[in-house]
Amino acid sequence: MSITVVGSVAYDSIETPAGRRERCLGGAATYFSLAASFFTDVRVIAVVGEDFGPRQQSVFDKRKIDTRGIEHTAGKSFFWEGSYLEDINEAKTHATELNVFAKFEPKIPAAYADSDFLFLANIDPVLQRRVREAMPQVKLVAGDTMNYWINDYRPALLEVLKGLDVLLINDTETRTLASEKNLVRAARAVMALGPRSLVVKHGEYGATLFQSQTGTKDLRIFRAPAMPLEEVIDPTGAGDSFAGGFVGYLASQPELTPAAFRRAVFYGSTMGSFACERFGTERLQQLTREEIDARFNHFREITHLD
Amino acid sequence: MSITVVGSVAYDSIETPAGRRERCLGGAATYFSLAASFFTDVRVIAVVGEDFGPRQQSVFDKRKIDTRGIEHTAGKSFFWEGSYLEDINEAKTHATELNVFAKFEPKIPAAYADSDFLFLANIDPVLQRRVREAMPQVKLVAGDTMNYWINDYRPALLEVLKGLDVLLINDTETRTLASEKNLVRAARAVMALGPRSLVVKHGEYGATLFQSQTGTKDLRIFRAPAMPLEEVIDPTGAGDSFAGGFVGYLASQPELTPAAFRRAVFYGSTMGSFACERFGTERLQQLTREEIDARFNHFREITHLD
Repeated sequence: MSITVVGSVAYDSIETPAGRRERCLGGAATYFSLAASFFTDVRVIAVVGEDFGPRQQSVFDKRKIDTRGIEHTAGKSFFWEGSYLEDINEAKTHATELNVFAKFEPKIPAAYADSDFLFLANIDPVLQRRVREAMPQVKLVAGDTMNYWINDYRPALLEVLKGLDVLLINDTETRTLASEKNLVRAARAVMALGPRSLVVKHGEYGATLFQSQTGTKDLRIFRAPAMPLEEVIDPTGAGDSFAGGFVGYLASQPELTPAAFRRAVFYGSTMGSFACERFGTERLQQLTREEIDARFNHFREITHLD
Repeated sequence: MSITVVGSVAYDSIETPAGRRERCLGGAATYFSLAASFFTDVRVIAVVGEDFGPRQQSVFDKRKIDTRGIEHTAGKSFFWEGSYLEDINEAKTHATELNVFAKFEPKIPAAYADSDFLFLANIDPVLQRRVREAMPQVKLVAGDTMNYWINDYRPALLEVLKGLDVLLINDTETRTLASEKNLVRAARAVMALGPRSLVVKHGEYGATLFQSQTGTKDLRIFRAPAMPLEEVIDPTGAGDSFAGGFVGYLASQPELTPAAFRRAVFYGSTMGSFACERFGTERLQQLTREEIDARFNHFREITHLD
């Protein structure tokens, strides 16, 4: 099955204890689509400037990602500069330049109309909703957001949440969205806003999947620890890579059973762990499905009880 | 097999978002021995003051815990006052009164000499070492410590670590002890100081077991998520209860296989989760082995992949 993702394709200048890289290819839609491309067909909707050239295009082409929905316009691509010097798990933003993204109006190619899944990466909820409404035929809609939209664009975000099947956010975002510190109670409150499945990402500690069950107030809960990594080079994009692995794996499955959702969480963690091993998307660009499955199995092994 | 534990038996005044309790029975040795008592015979070495009476004694008696090693002296028992109002996962200490604990000189009853396991709870490493040396026959020594000893009593602590089979500490303590931020590398550094097994407790996120393997530099890693709790009444003693479940379960096993260690981590998490459900030791006092095994199974279920 095919996934359409709408989000940012960007350049990132990143500093971590392992070093510094200028203007890596990045953006949520880039990480997501690279990660998901190992599982299924991926189609991207985004906007880039004149600084996006053949070298960047080839990153998508090599993974057979459909980029007909990437609009090329005059100006510069979205740019982010950040560092992780004090705490490898927390980005400190030094600069955000929206550039061509400031006037982004997602255009959906006719060829994307038969997409089965839709992923709304972390962008303005007004745009998320517009894309979602323009693709009413999709079987599953998953999405991401961040504290900026939760705090300052709540009404628009609430409209998006109503139309989501799966929301993937982190601990802080879950607690902020619910105004509730306890994670399980916060998850209940968030799911009451729309999504029947909620994946809360705990960074280096893993993720918890909450799912509502018809006929009962009991949540179905699945908790996966994260891969303990001996070396984290650059955590940029780990969350988007998690989402790509999670949604990509689900899209590859004939049926969305609870077991498929569980394996999807493990594939999400697996892809997130790879993303951290090199700067930017370097590791995802060089990855093979064999490496992914080997790590999935190793990951299961180090968490398996009997 | 029997466990001797040396540590504090104390009174705690605790405030959490769920309320306030004055002078609950607490202390690391109390939580540890209550938790471990569901798995094996437990013997306590501690000191209490005149405020420790029949009501406190009966808490131990009901769980058939051997208290012949609890010395009664003139004065007041160790007292701690703390709150968890801003962050349920972080204690803010308001008062610590060592009282009779200031002159604690552990005395080991002759009847404890045939103990199989020894647990050195979080006390002055000089005392930990003294008890360890007085019980050379034990088959396994596990221990805990805290940042206070790591930072200011390092030489004495290093002597203790040399004699430990298992060290159970949290993320911050592991990183501080190793002067290394990456958890896997920090674990390696800590294990180079002595313990062949290291359990790093991640609070609400679970725990990771690291074990050295003879003939290879590869660490054997096992990661267990924690129980997602809908209501945390009081996290005091959760770490000590984890240790009690972990060491208690190991002591109940005929052989210390890797599988036994894995189950021990799950039993540790299970006991830690129960401890949080009521103030002080209230929940541990009322617990049954059936409830423990039901939660262990539920816990396995919510983390089991296939």
